[in-house]
Amino acid sequence: MQQPHGATDLARLFEFLRRLYEEQLPFNRVLGLEVRSLGEKQVQVAIPMQPCLVGNPLYGILHGGVISAVVDAAGGLAVTAGILNQLVGQPMDQIARKVARISTIDLRVDYLRPGKGTEFLATGVIMRTGSKVAVTRMELHSDAGVLIAVGTGTYIVG
Amino acid sequence: MQQPHGATDLARLFEFLRRLYEEQLPFNRVLGLEVRSLGEKQVQVAIPMQPCLVGNPLYGILHGGVISAVVDAAGGLAVTAGILNQLVGQPMDQIARKVARISTIDLRVDYLRPGKGTEFLATGVIMRTGSKVAVTRMELHSDAGVLIAVGTGTYIVG
Amino acid sequence: MQQPHGATDLARLFEFLRRLYEEQLPFNRVLGLEVRSLGEKQVQVAIPMQPCLVGNPLYGILHGGVISAVVDAAGGLAVTAGILNQLVGQPMDQIARKVARISTIDLRVDYLRPGKGTEFLATGVIMRTGSKVAVTRMELHSDAGVLIAVGTGTYIVG
Amino acid sequence: MQQPHGATDLARLFEFLRRLYEEQLPFNRVLGLEVRSLGEKQVQVAIPMQPCLVGNPLYGILHGGVISAVVDAAGGLAVTAGILNQLVGQPMDQIARKVARISTIDLRVDYLRPGKGTEFLATGVIMRTGSKVAVTRMELHSDAGVLIAVGTGTYIVG
Repeated sequence: MQQPHGATDLARLFEFLRRLYEEQLPFNRVLGLEVRSLGEKQVQVAIPMQPCLVGNPLYGILHGGVISAVVDAAGGLAVTAGILNQLVGQPMDQIARKVARISTIDLRVDYLRPGKGTEFLATGVIMRTGSKVAVTRMELHSDAGVLIAVGTGTYIVG
Repeated sequence: MQQPHGATDLARLFEFLRRLYEEQLPFNRVLGLEVRSLGEKQVQVAIPMQPCLVGNPLYGILHGGVISAVVDAAGGLAVTAGILNQLVGQPMDQIARKVARISTIDLRVDYLRPGKGTEFLATGVIMRTGSKVAVTRMELHSDAGVLIAVGTGTYIVG
Repeated sequence: MQQPHGATDLARLFEFLRRLYEEQLPFNRVLGLEVRSLGEKQVQVAIPMQPCLVGNPLYGILHGGVISAVVDAAGGLAVTAGILNQLVGQPMDQIARKVARISTIDLRVDYLRPGKGTEFLATGVIMRTGSKVAVTRMELHSDAGVLIAVGTGTYIVG
Repeated sequence: MQQPHGATDLARLFEFLRRLYEEQLPFNRVLGLEVRSLGEKQVQVAIPMQPCLVGNPLYGILHGGVISAVVDAAGGLAVTAGILNQLVGQPMDQIARKVARISTIDLRVDYLRPGKGTEFLATGVIMRTGSKVAVTRMELHSDAGVLIAVGTGTYIVG
């Protein structure tokens, strides 16, 4: 049986979200951001080490601004994936309007250790989603499994 | 009268700091960061709007990660300029070691309004500098004078 | 001329707000919180030093939890006073419902110096009020004029 | 065999820490704070609901300032317990000096749900301890298992 025209299933919505984050947000392309997993409560993104992302060239470590950008991306993506889960079956234009309204209210990042590595993985986990505000916690690990940073983000959702 | 070999005056130290931030930190070059003013308690940096710094291409606004990167840069620069003020006259290698140890412990950014504009100015002001930790407050304005974001940063200094 | 039944002027609303904060919130009474000034953009509250508010008895300084409580109170009061300004003339029950919905989303406090003194003054200033979220910055000074702490709060308003 | 005079074992140090937090910090007594567990990486404290700790008497929920005080206490206790673990066997006066130097640099609290319940449990977990700064994450649950708040704290340790 075919889906009604314009209706949505979760796999399609997640593919839409992955493309949005990886291909359509210009600064995410500078970061080389890749979406690694999308769940209802948790997501994961990755960035590769690149010369342009270095803060301190002496030590070859990630710039703090790159760390906060990736941490924020993981939180925003977690919130968006969580909301898409609730919107399955609704018309695509309505979903797109809802997603366009999600934005970061505030972000805290704790820089625990120098950003050394060849790849970095950021996990975003939803602590709470209300009708207006969502709160997430994030962790950034290096490919060697070292915890580089943690963060907390508050996002407007409605 | 000549300065003793390797000693430092404030103008030279500030020129060293400006070059460090504008030319030697790769990710600051991606941001197009310019140091606009350096004082004992307050500094100002600017970035131009660029296509690669956009978060949401529909609205053409700065990516949140760019905002947090610039806000952090303004805080770190304020702390470093404050410390250089205290180190005038000391040998350059000692100063360089001290500056290399400065790093962000944690950062909070509040995203108040969309990052629209052709240029953005971030001000960093020192709230307190101790022997180990410094705290700064930051503001990011657009060239139209709109307050885009505020932030608070904690930095290790010793 | 008499006011229409149940309508409100700003002086009456501010008196209602002062009483709410000083007399009706039990924990504010533990703190000995006093409302010192109420403006559209800025408010001030005070607490006296009391033996029960001490954290470290060796040094006789305020407990960090007292500092964060007062800083949060100043932020919440600023948001509420700002909203009352917009609601002048509306029926009291509608205003009470709106005020009851205001609550803290998140709070950051930076503890700059030990809480020494006989009285402490917290100022709350609105950075932005939207239809859903308001952001404030706070400062806590001792009666000797020493900056003890700064903070930032995000509040739900609608 | 007797211990050398003034030396310390971990059980004795933890008993000293428990008494310090429960009995010697006046504001912790207002909160009714109890230390429930002390580990190298994680600690737990509890407070009972009390009329004086209420913020909103209409709903009978904890004051936000109480929540932030308990969250901060859990973080500070985790840091202190972690450091005591490293100091086992050192003279007590040296340990006391080290512990007296621990203080909160900054704290973020996210208020996720209303503080309803008869008892509240705060857990503090160390994310990183360096030679100067430690970072912790905290969670506050009600006795019904509801996550009321999360937090992150930065503490000076040396």
